[in-house]
Amino acid sequence: MARVVVDVVLKPEILDPQGQAIVGALTRLGITGINDVRQGKHFELEVDDELDDSTVTRLADTLLANPVIENFAIRRDPA
Amino acid sequence: MARVVVDVVLKPEILDPQGQAIVGALTRLGITGINDVRQGKHFELEVDDELDDSTVTRLADTLLANPVIENFAIRRDPA
Repeated sequence: MARVVVDVVLKPEILDPQGQAIVGALTRLGITGINDVRQGKHFELEVDDELDDSTVTRLADTLLANPVIENFAIRRDPA
Repeated sequence: MARVVVDVVLKPEILDPQGQAIVGALTRLGITGINDVRQGKHFELEVDDELDDSTVTRLADTLLANPVIENFAIRRDPA
């Protein structure tokens, strides 16, 4: 059993109102030094060892991310 | 300017209906070999270089994650 992590983030040209709301809240919390926040989705998959990367890519492209507005990154988690 | 990534996931003992919905959809897509999915949140922060880790931890603990039901991991992104 292996763990695969898929991170989905909005493309840089897409407005991220959730991230902007967090930046606004930082000021009220008195936290400085953070200039931008982008929010995305994080998926942890428990997969069979023999599962190949192309299947994970197909899954991310069809189910986890909307490729019109989002990019995704896949990594094998050693943990 | 440095990039810090915060990943927030539900604690293992907390039920994750979103992840279960994805597992259910996998069968309909004909994808096999994926046994479990947990969904969380992914934040990419653009921070000043001199920002220390304790500030990011405080931010994650008060604003990004609900520590009652969620764990978070912080990493410096070299990209």
